[in-house]
Amino acid sequence: MPQLRKDPIIGRWIIISTERAKRPKDFVVSHKDAGPTPCPFCEGNENMTPPEIFAFRKDGTGKDKPGWQIRVVPSKHLVLRIGRDLGRKAVGIYDVMNSIGAHEIIIESPKHVTHFSDLEQDNINLVIKAYINRIMDLKKDENFKYVMLFKNYGRAAGASSITHTHSQLIATPVNPKRVKEELNGSRLYFEYKERCIYCDIIRQELDNRQRIVAEVDGFVAFCPFASRFPFETWILPLAHSCDFENLKEEQIPALSKILKEVFLRLRKVLDDPPYNYVLHTAPFRRAKAKAGYWKTITEDYHWHIEIMPRLTGIAGFEWGTGFYINPTPPEEAAKYLREAKI
Amino acid sequence: MPQLRKDPIIGRWIIISTERAKRPKDFVVSHKDAGPTPCPFCEGNENMTPPEIFAFRKDGTGKDKPGWQIRVVPSKHLVLRIGRDLGRKAVGIYDVMNSIGAHEIIIESPKHVTHFSDLEQDNINLVIKAYINRIMDLKKDENFKYVMLFKNYGRAAGASSITHTHSQLIATPVNPKRVKEELNGSRLYFEYKERCIYCDIIRQELDNRQRIVAEVDGFVAFCPFASRFPFETWILPLAHSCDFENLKEEQIPALSKILKEVFLRLRKVLDDPPYNYVLHTAPFRRAKAKAGYWKTITEDYHWHIEIMPRLTGIAGFEWGTGFYINPTPPEEAAKYLREAKI
Repeated sequence: MPQLRKDPIIGRWIIISTERAKRPKDFVVSHKDAGPTPCPFCEGNENMTPPEIFAFRKDGTGKDKPGWQIRVVPSKHLVLRIGRDLGRKAVGIYDVMNSIGAHEIIIESPKHVTHFSDLEQDNINLVIKAYINRIMDLKKDENFKYVMLFKNYGRAAGASSITHTHSQLIATPVNPKRVKEELNGSRLYFEYKERCIYCDIIRQELDNRQRIVAEVDGFVAFCPFASRFPFETWILPLAHSCDFENLKEEQIPALSKILKEVFLRLRKVLDDPPYNYVLHTAPFRRAKAKAGYWKTITEDYHWHIEIMPRLTGIAGFEWGTGFYINPTPPEEAAKYLREAKI
Repeated sequence: MPQLRKDPIIGRWIIISTERAKRPKDFVVSHKDAGPTPCPFCEGNENMTPPEIFAFRKDGTGKDKPGWQIRVVPSKHLVLRIGRDLGRKAVGIYDVMNSIGAHEIIIESPKHVTHFSDLEQDNINLVIKAYINRIMDLKKDENFKYVMLFKNYGRAAGASSITHTHSQLIATPVNPKRVKEELNGSRLYFEYKERCIYCDIIRQELDNRQRIVAEVDGFVAFCPFASRFPFETWILPLAHSCDFENLKEEQIPALSKILKEVFLRLRKVLDDPPYNYVLHTAPFRRAKAKAGYWKTITEDYHWHIEIMPRLTGIAGFEWGTGFYINPTPPEEAAKYLREAKI
C-alpha cells in the first residue's frame, strides 16, 4: 500500500509509492527516451489502458470501444487509490496515512495529437467539460479534500514517454501545502482589505498592461509580477470565482480560446518548450467548516491556471530554498508572447 | 539593476535579473551542451574570472596568480551585487527592492576535478574552511540576513557548462521562504516539546536504523522519512548546533569524510547522478532580535546539508503544488546507498 508521509518540520505531505518502487537501475534507464510503441491513448487501443471512468462518446458506441472524443481512465502508474480507511497514525515522531485518493488520466483526443494547441476549439471545450465532470464527481467522496489537475509536457517537465496529449488529476485526502499557502496569503489580504487579492492583481495588470499576454472575453493571461520562471504565464477569469468547477457553460468557449492562444504563443516564442500546467482552485468545502467561514472563502480566493515553461539551465538550488532566480523579466517575456505572430 | 520582487500572495521573493535578461533564443541555445573551452576555474586561467575575494594559497604566491588550493571569486553571472541601498518600495500592490547581495563561486581545486568525491580528504577540509570563512565575512554586512550555500551538479540540476567542481553562495537581504518555514516548524515543535526536532529525528533514525546511509564520528547521513526525491540524503551533526559557521576546527575532518562518503555512494548507486546540495543553516542573528529570542533560536534549529539527486522523469506538477511523489521509499534508497561497495 502506498503511503502518505508528513514532513515533520515543514508539514508537507509526500506520497511514497511503495508498490512500484524504483530501484537505482530504473533511473538509469529513464535517462533515455522510450522507443516507438503503439500509443495506448489512441482510438482503437482502448484495451491498453485500465477500463474507462468517464467518456464523451458518440451515441451507440460502447465503453472501452472506439467512438469517443474524450476518455478518462485511471493512471496505470497509480500513486493513490480509492479506499475507505485513511488510517492516519504516528510512527515515532512521524505521521503517516494510507495513500487513499484517485489518479486519473484525461485523454484529450482520439487522434494522436501531441500538442494541446493543435486541438480544435470544440475539442478543448470538451476537455474543460471533462475536467468539471471529474471534479464534481470526486467532490462527492468525503475522503477527498482537493483535486489537483495538471499537465506535464516534455521530459524536462516530468512527462512520461506517452506523447499523446492528456491531462492528469490527483484527488488527495489532504490539502497540498502550496494551496494552503495561497489560501492563507489571500485570506490575510482579504481580512485587511476586504477585497480579493487576485481581483486587485487583475485590475493592476489590466491598467499597467506591461505583463499582459492575451485577453479573451472574460479571461486574461499575463506573466506574473514575481514570476518564478521565464515566461511563466497565468490565466484568470475576470469575474471573481473561487471554484473552477462552478465555471458556467457559456464561459467555456472563451477559456478554451485563451488556453489555445497562450499555448500557441508559448510554442511559437520558445520553440515548443516543456512545461507544467496546474489548475489552482479552492479545496472542497465541507459541512464541518466553521460557521461564517464558508462565506468568506468564496470571496478571498480566485481560481487560476499557472503555466510554467521548464527551460534548461534554470532551476537549481530553488528546490532547496524556495528562492527563485528568473533571468527574464516578466515584462519582456509578456512582450515576446503578446507580439508573436500566431 | 536587478530587482527583488515579492510574490504578493505567497510572500516568496524572486530575483529578477534584468541586466542579463534572457531572450527566447537564449533558451533554445541552452538546450545544447557548450563546446570545449579552456576551463576558467583551472589553475593558470585566473585571468578568466573576476578578481578573487579569498583564497587558500601557498606562501609567496600572489592574488589572482597560480599557487592556490581553494579560490573564491564573484560569479560572472551575478544575480545580486554589493551595495548600500535596499530601496524597498511598493509598485501598486507589489513589493520590490534592489537586488543587493553577494554571489560567489568557491572553486574547490586548482586541478580540473569534476567530481567532488574525487577530492582528497585534506582538500575537502579546505573547502569547508572556505565556506566558514565566507559566511563569517558576509555576516559582517548588516544588509545581509542569510547566506545560502549550494552546489548544482549536472545540467538536469541547473549547473552551467563549467564542470570544474565548485560551490556557490548567495547572500540575501531577506530570509528565503523555505528557511523561514523550517524555522517556524522547528520553533513550534520546540515550544511544545522543549526539544530540537532535528535532535529527535536523529535519535529516532539512529534507533530505527532503516534509513541510515553513513555514520562518521559525530555526523550521520540518512534518507529522510518524508523524502521528496528518490535517494534524497541529509547530513547532520549529532551535537546540537544551529549555525554552520560555528563548526569547530576538530569537527571538520569528520564532516569532510562523511561528505566524501555520501557522494561516493550516490555516484556508485545512481551512476553519477545530477544533484543539488544545499546547506541549511540559521539566519544571521542581529541585535534587533527580540529579547529572549536570541537564546531560543540557538536551541530550536539544527544546521544540516540536504542532497537531492535530480533523476529524470521525476518532478512534474510538484512545482505548482508543493506536493511530491517519490517512487523510491527512503528505506530502500538508504539500503542501496549503505550497502554499495565504495
